[in-house]
Amino acid sequence: MHKRKKFILSEKEIPHQWYNVAAEMKNKPQPYINATTKEPIEAKDFYPLFSKEVSRQEVNQTDVWIDIPEPVREEYKVYRPSPLVRAYGLEKALDTPAHIYFKNESVSPVGSHKLNSALPQAYYNKIEGATNITTETGAGQWGAALAYATNVFDLELAVYMVRVSYEQKPYRRSMMQTWGAQVIASPSMSTKTGRKIITENPQYQGSLGTAISEAIELAIQTPNCKYALGSVLNHVSLHQTIIGLEAEKQMEMAEEYPDIVIGCFGGGSNFSGITFPFIRYNINGTKNTRFIAAEPSSCPKLTRGKFRYDYGDQAGFTPLIPMYTLGSQFTPSNIHAGGLRYHGAGSIVSQLMKDGYIEATDINQIDSFKAGVLFAQTEGIIPAPESNHAIAATIHEALKAKEEGTKKTILFNLSGHGLVDMASYDKYLSGDLVNYTLTEETIAKSRDLG
Amino acid sequence: MHKRKKFILSEKEIPHQWYNVAAEMKNKPQPYINATTKEPIEAKDFYPLFSKEVSRQEVNQTDVWIDIPEPVREEYKVYRPSPLVRAYGLEKALDTPAHIYFKNESVSPVGSHKLNSALPQAYYNKIEGATNITTETGAGQWGAALAYATNVFDLELAVYMVRVSYEQKPYRRSMMQTWGAQVIASPSMSTKTGRKIITENPQYQGSLGTAISEAIELAIQTPNCKYALGSVLNHVSLHQTIIGLEAEKQMEMAEEYPDIVIGCFGGGSNFSGITFPFIRYNINGTKNTRFIAAEPSSCPKLTRGKFRYDYGDQAGFTPLIPMYTLGSQFTPSNIHAGGLRYHGAGSIVSQLMKDGYIEATDINQIDSFKAGVLFAQTEGIIPAPESNHAIAATIHEALKAKEEGTKKTILFNLSGHGLVDMASYDKYLSGDLVNYTLTEETIAKSRDLG
Repeated sequence: MHKRKKFILSEKEIPHQWYNVAAEMKNKPQPYINATTKEPIEAKDFYPLFSKEVSRQEVNQTDVWIDIPEPVREEYKVYRPSPLVRAYGLEKALDTPAHIYFKNESVSPVGSHKLNSALPQAYYNKIEGATNITTETGAGQWGAALAYATNVFDLELAVYMVRVSYEQKPYRRSMMQTWGAQVIASPSMSTKTGRKIITENPQYQGSLGTAISEAIELAIQTPNCKYALGSVLNHVSLHQTIIGLEAEKQMEMAEEYPDIVIGCFGGGSNFSGITFPFIRYNINGTKNTRFIAAEPSSCPKLTRGKFRYDYGDQAGFTPLIPMYTLGSQFTPSNIHAGGLRYHGAGSIVSQLMKDGYIEATDINQIDSFKAGVLFAQTEGIIPAPESNHAIAATIHEALKAKEEGTKKTILFNLSGHGLVDMASYDKYLSGDLVNYTLTEETIAKSRDLG
Repeated sequence: MHKRKKFILSEKEIPHQWYNVAAEMKNKPQPYINATTKEPIEAKDFYPLFSKEVSRQEVNQTDVWIDIPEPVREEYKVYRPSPLVRAYGLEKALDTPAHIYFKNESVSPVGSHKLNSALPQAYYNKIEGATNITTETGAGQWGAALAYATNVFDLELAVYMVRVSYEQKPYRRSMMQTWGAQVIASPSMSTKTGRKIITENPQYQGSLGTAISEAIELAIQTPNCKYALGSVLNHVSLHQTIIGLEAEKQMEMAEEYPDIVIGCFGGGSNFSGITFPFIRYNINGTKNTRFIAAEPSSCPKLTRGKFRYDYGDQAGFTPLIPMYTLGSQFTPSNIHAGGLRYHGAGSIVSQLMKDGYIEATDINQIDSFKAGVLFAQTEGIIPAPESNHAIAATIHEALKAKEEGTKKTILFNLSGHGLVDMASYDKYLSGDLVNYTLTEETIAKSRDLG
């Protein structure tokens, strides 16, 4: 029995523009580079894959504010503005002087923040004349969001879902199908890449790398077909800033400003979303907030990776991206937080990290679930396994504040709920969950390549 | 791409009182009767099982308004007020002149309206000195809600979960466990009833009737232990009126008043919740709204049942209740809408039905899922299989309005989301779902007994 408080904005207060932090950074992110020609990538180089509008957003380092198209903003109204919640229950359980707030992105109909970028990506493709979209999905969060969005904007979607997830996570597959998407287990016979892999190894369980290759191959070979990606890229981070922009208004309602802002970290989409609108005040020198990326110990690109040019995918289809990376050949352990199993960080986050605006911390799997269960028991919502990393980092900071006897205001992003991931909680509760440790040698093998 | 509109109340506007329709009914519901003594049941007869406060609420036919305790109202703030949504997408797909609104109870952290009664039931037990609660659950919606609520109010909970669901629906079991409840597959060795059944038939897959018997037996034999029920009873309907009371304010914001109010119907909890606050204006003669209970064709207590005294459970533990019933020995088909598989209707709904305030319609399983998928594709939210029945009835009325060329305002209750029930959508989408038909002979066998 705790005090409860949410801060709710009206539909009118849904932002009309996204925030483009690249335009205000003193050191701009270095350009993407074509691996063959060594030339910097321009917007038009992305046109075969993405809509022209997101291609331009991807390289835009000049416009601070980018208009949200009215039809996208209209669709945001289905679940936005999302609530900001004062976590009185968690504070009490920790007996901390810290004030803890979380932005609740789990209220979207797909259960996570991914919809914030899926909607504009589908919309831009639609108005530019595409009829079909392809994408890949691991655990299914991004695939579900894009299935929802392509249904809204009347586009056909083909999702290549890593075969092992396709078989083990039928719920998210059914969600995508309910919204009308075609879901194909990858590797599949529908692409050259897939056929080759199946022929060589019929038992292969699939990987995100293979699924990406299949989705790109199908997009390139199909008329009026584009490809979509749910994290890492700059335009995805841009769309996600709606999280932080709303949170900024809501923190004003609460009459507080965060000393610390925390998000879990996979490729960077939800982390960028909650942090970028607050980082601008650090950049212009009016605030001195700490920004903490919470990544899994088994995939520690920011805490133990290297800043260098690397491919965004295993197969080397993407341009070279300036990023903190464990190496594009790094294969993360099979943790339940599927959305955090990515080898690198987006170029903007990487530059901000390099310039000291961002810090990172790593959380092991068991600690992440321990934090998630405490959160469920104090705040009610069962978090996504990914979000548990942000909660664990928040708890760590709140306990430090208690030790130091200082009042800190902490804001974290609850990127999604865990109702479709209950099997992982089952494992944790029955003591069957393990931690994965990484030796320096293992990391060095892929990190220092290239 | 549709117009989108939600009507959002502030936390301050969460009602301070529940609405007790029994106090305003011209023909009061007949009393419950002790099957042995034939005497009417009084509040004190419930004291061994329930808290004194809900025992009094159960038989209260005089107080129109009952205060919501402040600590319960505080906990409601975690997810209430719930949004009222204008279903522009569904209207457009149906090309109907009807205005369709739905109250979105799926936003609760347990995913359904069940929490509205679980919270006060747990609270009253806590302040009256109970330490333990027992309950039963079929598909797990009620068990999950009570697990959440007993965690909030620091009570131990034992949930008897029908064995077949325990094994086939591990997600809801894990939800209950995450909130700290003990979940026991029923029949179990922890009760005399369970031991007897297991000894006689070790393969028995369990039934709600058996689970109820086990939960009641454990409650009666354990010091400071009470039992809790999630539907059918008057105090549950009372707590659920918060749905309709909020909806009334939100319809005012929309500047409309419903011509038709629709809810799916199992034992009556969500249906009562959305309708009772509006029925009062029919009772006092100022409005003439239609109220439609949407029940499954395979469990048609209101459309094909008989109004008579019957037991609330299969084993005959409960008092005799004046109800529309298919007979307490009726065994419903194994439809996916587990929450609607109940043989009877609560006493207040039954009396209102008898007096012509309420109508009922029956929906077959395939039509219910067809409606649910259309809703998911037009409004975004994947509904619970139970809620699909309300949607199907709404679609029927909206198409009738189109045929007649009349503008109707329809309000229905979206009692929950279907994210933990995706296996049922999978079956529907792959064409494996079946309808169940009931012959008059089958029904008559149990309906006309007793």
